[in-house]
Amino acid sequence: MSFLSDTTAPAHPALLEALVRANEGAAASYGNDAISARVKAQLKEIFSTDLELVFTVSGTASNSLALSVLAPGDTAILCHDEAHIHRDERGAPEFFTGGAKLITLHGDHARLTPETLEAALSQWPSDFVHTTPPSVLSLSNLTESGTTYDVATVKALTGLAKARGMHVHMDGARFANALAHLKCDPANLTWRAGVDVLSLGATKGGALAAEAVILFPSVMDRFSALQVRQKRAGHMVAKMRYVAAQFEAWLERGRWLELAAHANAMASELAKGLSVVPGAKLLHPVEGNEVFIDLPQEAVDALNALNAGFYPWPHGGYRFVTSWQTKAEDVARVVKTARG
Amino acid sequence: MSFLSDTTAPAHPALLEALVRANEGAAASYGNDAISARVKAQLKEIFSTDLELVFTVSGTASNSLALSVLAPGDTAILCHDEAHIHRDERGAPEFFTGGAKLITLHGDHARLTPETLEAALSQWPSDFVHTTPPSVLSLSNLTESGTTYDVATVKALTGLAKARGMHVHMDGARFANALAHLKCDPANLTWRAGVDVLSLGATKGGALAAEAVILFPSVMDRFSALQVRQKRAGHMVAKMRYVAAQFEAWLERGRWLELAAHANAMASELAKGLSVVPGAKLLHPVEGNEVFIDLPQEAVDALNALNAGFYPWPHGGYRFVTSWQTKAEDVARVVKTARG
Amino acid sequence: MSFLSDTTAPAHPALLEALVRANEGAAASYGNDAISARVKAQLKEIFSTDLELVFTVSGTASNSLALSVLAPGDTAILCHDEAHIHRDERGAPEFFTGGAKLITLHGDHARLTPETLEAALSQWPSDFVHTTPPSVLSLSNLTESGTTYDVATVKALTGLAKARGMHVHMDGARFANALAHLKCDPANLTWRAGVDVLSLGATKGGALAAEAVILFPSVMDRFSALQVRQKRAGHMVAKMRYVAAQFEAWLERGRWLELAAHANAMASELAKGLSVVPGAKLLHPVEGNEVFIDLPQEAVDALNALNAGFYPWPHGGYRFVTSWQTKAEDVARVVKTARG
Amino acid sequence: MSFLSDTTAPAHPALLEALVRANEGAAASYGNDAISARVKAQLKEIFSTDLELVFTVSGTASNSLALSVLAPGDTAILCHDEAHIHRDERGAPEFFTGGAKLITLHGDHARLTPETLEAALSQWPSDFVHTTPPSVLSLSNLTESGTTYDVATVKALTGLAKARGMHVHMDGARFANALAHLKCDPANLTWRAGVDVLSLGATKGGALAAEAVILFPSVMDRFSALQVRQKRAGHMVAKMRYVAAQFEAWLERGRWLELAAHANAMASELAKGLSVVPGAKLLHPVEGNEVFIDLPQEAVDALNALNAGFYPWPHGGYRFVTSWQTKAEDVARVVKTARG
Repeated sequence: MSFLSDTTAPAHPALLEALVRANEGAAASYGNDAISARVKAQLKEIFSTDLELVFTVSGTASNSLALSVLAPGDTAILCHDEAHIHRDERGAPEFFTGGAKLITLHGDHARLTPETLEAALSQWPSDFVHTTPPSVLSLSNLTESGTTYDVATVKALTGLAKARGMHVHMDGARFANALAHLKCDPANLTWRAGVDVLSLGATKGGALAAEAVILFPSVMDRFSALQVRQKRAGHMVAKMRYVAAQFEAWLERGRWLELAAHANAMASELAKGLSVVPGAKLLHPVEGNEVFIDLPQEAVDALNALNAGFYPWPHGGYRFVTSWQTKAEDVARVVKTARG
Repeated sequence: MSFLSDTTAPAHPALLEALVRANEGAAASYGNDAISARVKAQLKEIFSTDLELVFTVSGTASNSLALSVLAPGDTAILCHDEAHIHRDERGAPEFFTGGAKLITLHGDHARLTPETLEAALSQWPSDFVHTTPPSVLSLSNLTESGTTYDVATVKALTGLAKARGMHVHMDGARFANALAHLKCDPANLTWRAGVDVLSLGATKGGALAAEAVILFPSVMDRFSALQVRQKRAGHMVAKMRYVAAQFEAWLERGRWLELAAHANAMASELAKGLSVVPGAKLLHPVEGNEVFIDLPQEAVDALNALNAGFYPWPHGGYRFVTSWQTKAEDVARVVKTARG
Repeated sequence: MSFLSDTTAPAHPALLEALVRANEGAAASYGNDAISARVKAQLKEIFSTDLELVFTVSGTASNSLALSVLAPGDTAILCHDEAHIHRDERGAPEFFTGGAKLITLHGDHARLTPETLEAALSQWPSDFVHTTPPSVLSLSNLTESGTTYDVATVKALTGLAKARGMHVHMDGARFANALAHLKCDPANLTWRAGVDVLSLGATKGGALAAEAVILFPSVMDRFSALQVRQKRAGHMVAKMRYVAAQFEAWLERGRWLELAAHANAMASELAKGLSVVPGAKLLHPVEGNEVFIDLPQEAVDALNALNAGFYPWPHGGYRFVTSWQTKAEDVARVVKTARG
Repeated sequence: MSFLSDTTAPAHPALLEALVRANEGAAASYGNDAISARVKAQLKEIFSTDLELVFTVSGTASNSLALSVLAPGDTAILCHDEAHIHRDERGAPEFFTGGAKLITLHGDHARLTPETLEAALSQWPSDFVHTTPPSVLSLSNLTESGTTYDVATVKALTGLAKARGMHVHMDGARFANALAHLKCDPANLTWRAGVDVLSLGATKGGALAAEAVILFPSVMDRFSALQVRQKRAGHMVAKMRYVAAQFEAWLERGRWLELAAHANAMASELAKGLSVVPGAKLLHPVEGNEVFIDLPQEAVDALNALNAGFYPWPHGGYRFVTSWQTKAEDVARVVKTARG
């Protein structure tokens, strides 16, 4: 049992089986293999559009590569103050872009609002040589507080960005969880809502190490630039078939959404159960696979004694993360212990 | 059958089995797992020394991360004009170091000589503010022409570098092949010969995607800097246990050397067989798993008809690469066809 | 008459005379000339300490070079949200440092408080590989709102920074104005109060183009790194004697402080006069040569008709800047017109 | 007397007078002043074309800014192995471009030949993701060995570059000297011959610190990018009128060419006189204001005793540089002494 992170979970067995199947004979290197081509077809189907993509092995790489083809080094990226790209990637976006500036904005539950974005845009002009102009809006969905942006909010935000000639990136490390919660069409939550590039993460959703940077039609002309940067950053792995194989198995027959829905359900269950602990206070709506909650010390002690595995969170309270393999009985055990 | 590259080969089954075994329960993220710790112990044993390491998923990442902790951006890296870091990594070393200069030197069979190195050092002073001073010597072993540096030559070269206060990096994408050819102790070919950092590649030797940057004691104080750069470049993958598991299986009971020895033997066999084709001319000594050879057009046509899989090489002639899974019968077929 | 900026003012005649005097015979290049040496001696005397310095020709260069020897690219610089390095230098600090992150803090009148700094430090740990650790605190004195940090506040802020192992940079583009207002010893406001590096600007104070990056003893060991970066950034001008000559004339016999005191007095006079305009509201205390004030539209129109030269300010109100050559009669005219 | 470098010479009095004249009243900052506009008009007249330009204060800045708008960081710049941008600028081009690779070529007297360029181009393809593609050809005229490229050679070289879609930069730190030697139209030696960007240096020709990056019509669309980089690198000095004023005086009524012609004549005289010293050997044709010559130790000792001021050159022999203020009598004294 561990609620530390979805990255401590193992990979789903179907993905390992896919690896074994992929391990046959010679295959073209660097992404020119047949499995990679098949995954591209899957994604076109899922997103109902033409698209281009490259694979990486980490969300940090995926986000930074995405940003690097959208944000020249002398421009700025607008994001939430809690954004993973700002807080948890050791300045990777700055490194990959050659020094672009992250301008951070506030908002409850790690969500930006159109009002805040508008205010920021008014402060940072587009065409003054002395000032760093915003070129990209980056939204995380699922957000860093485990909440979602719904389609209408994404549209409102991207509309403001587009009116300024900016591009929009979505950090989808837990995109499947957001989608499973919102129960909406992947196209509607992305390119149809104004998203140009999606970092789509499979690692937290059940892969060993598989992430994709997806360019939607509005920015498909940057594909060769993206490949160049993928190579230059050491992320064009030689035997790419093994990354592709993970994606193929993850996406096939809706597995990615099923696994996410399970994780979400476990988080809901956990939140429901912990909320009624006297003195407990849910800090953010639970709209994915993360629960942020303040707990009385007694409950915390009991859970630690159980070795439940969870983090005290820097801003206060505790974080519990569920995953594709979280068991209902473990959730029940945690809840029972906390209530104890 | 394919002699295009050792990166078109599949992974060795033992490594896939290791992945399956590693897929049990929760494990600490980002390299703090038990398998990573075991690999470190294996490598200490193999290299008879204390050391630090990080894993990556590509040789480009491995080389560039290694160089980035040795070469500040305002210094220079000396390497052979044929070096992979110069020719085939899309400027990754320049990117990771923040603009360090690669100063390239000549030498037969992609090998530097002490004379050439000495001449270069005399041209590039250490302490003149206007001039970029050399900080690192990078040697590939196996070299890009499939030849080896023996211990004595490595020592002669590193001696010159050390006298100038430089550090020494070894690009060991095919280090196992060099070792198998030279039949020497890994320690003798590296840190005992003056090498500070080794990029040790397993991918070409039978892994799915597994490379390591190994810091020997002389530069172990740079370990935290290396981890920071690994993170910042998106190479600190979350579920590191899967990279570690590949290494563990590759290194255990000398498997890495056995696989390399097989690949080397296949290359020797191939070279021997092709050399006697009338008009054929071996371009470099075959000391690893690569054969560079000039062939008459007739033989080339016949091999293409056989779909043998090999590249015409930019500098003339053709390159054939063997791997852990090259079959003696395929080599025989190629030789017979070429002679045919 | 112009109150647009102290950069629209001409140079003080004494500095031009110094240029003419410097224009005799051959002189060593790149800062190795006799005048540069004399300026160093002047500054040692003024700051009562040993020090090292390089000259530049812009405040942006001076700030960025200073930061680049203190803040590695994978660390963060803490500064006020209004800081010139954040708002007005087109990401120069990010460029010079190789992607360091500027983390911006709030505070009235462009001044940081120890409380805000402490809160920020608690959010950004020093030793977590995923998070960008703060390495530098940058303070502007005069601040961007024309206010000063007194010695006690500087000490309180640097104390917190030092306790975390950070270095402290002072952007002194208008340092002379701050000093003239505070009437304190230059040493007390800088190195004795915990400042490691001072960007000392003469351009706004009466030079043609003359700025210095001064390393106090605590960081003098970075002098050769600073020279390397000065060269690499194209700021080691060949005929440095002409930059040095401006500094020599500016500093000699307290001229720099006299000129600043005059500018400050003109600003005070202007603020006093404009404050009594009905509907006017001073936005920040006037502690240097800048006046930020909200004015009724009528007064603005009248001043525009007079061609007074001043800017509407992005955050509301208007900015008037005085300089060494602002005439009391022009101030009187502006005041009279605004009241009129 | 000094033949160390044209950067040890003082500025021409006419330029100082221009500074004094420029020091009147308020002027718009950052290059928006009237004198800057007048210099642009002068240059349009001189080069018989529309153009855009920014000023800098060093040749390093000028070259690096020029390269930074032509060469993305993942591409390569081709230049001579002796190029100043490679040997003497501490990696500034790498810094400004974000890691572009300098690929260096050989050629007698620091001149590239079409044959060498063609060979290099064949080795470095344009469209292979693993390889750094050449984007810029950089030629120095005057070259680093004091020789010139004539119009026909420039055309031949730029023709090859253009056929590959590359741009062409000319390092004209001593462009006036080349022009004075070749006696050709400035337009013919630059944009009409395929040069896209010229770094035009006045500092060595008689200014205090004045350089320009000139964009010819083929790349004028990069002007705003150039301004952004100028700002970001700290080279957009606030009181730009003083840089502009130097250029205005230098260019007016052909002064720049007169001063260069004088320097060239002094170098010719010096070369002629030293060549006949027994044992002396001129190393490069003297086509500008530099003399590279091998001298017997006796002569060297005598010249050192005279305190003539000259450098032993890294590749052997000695370098003497003349300037606008070199006196015929000093040349005569040097020649007499060396012969003596």
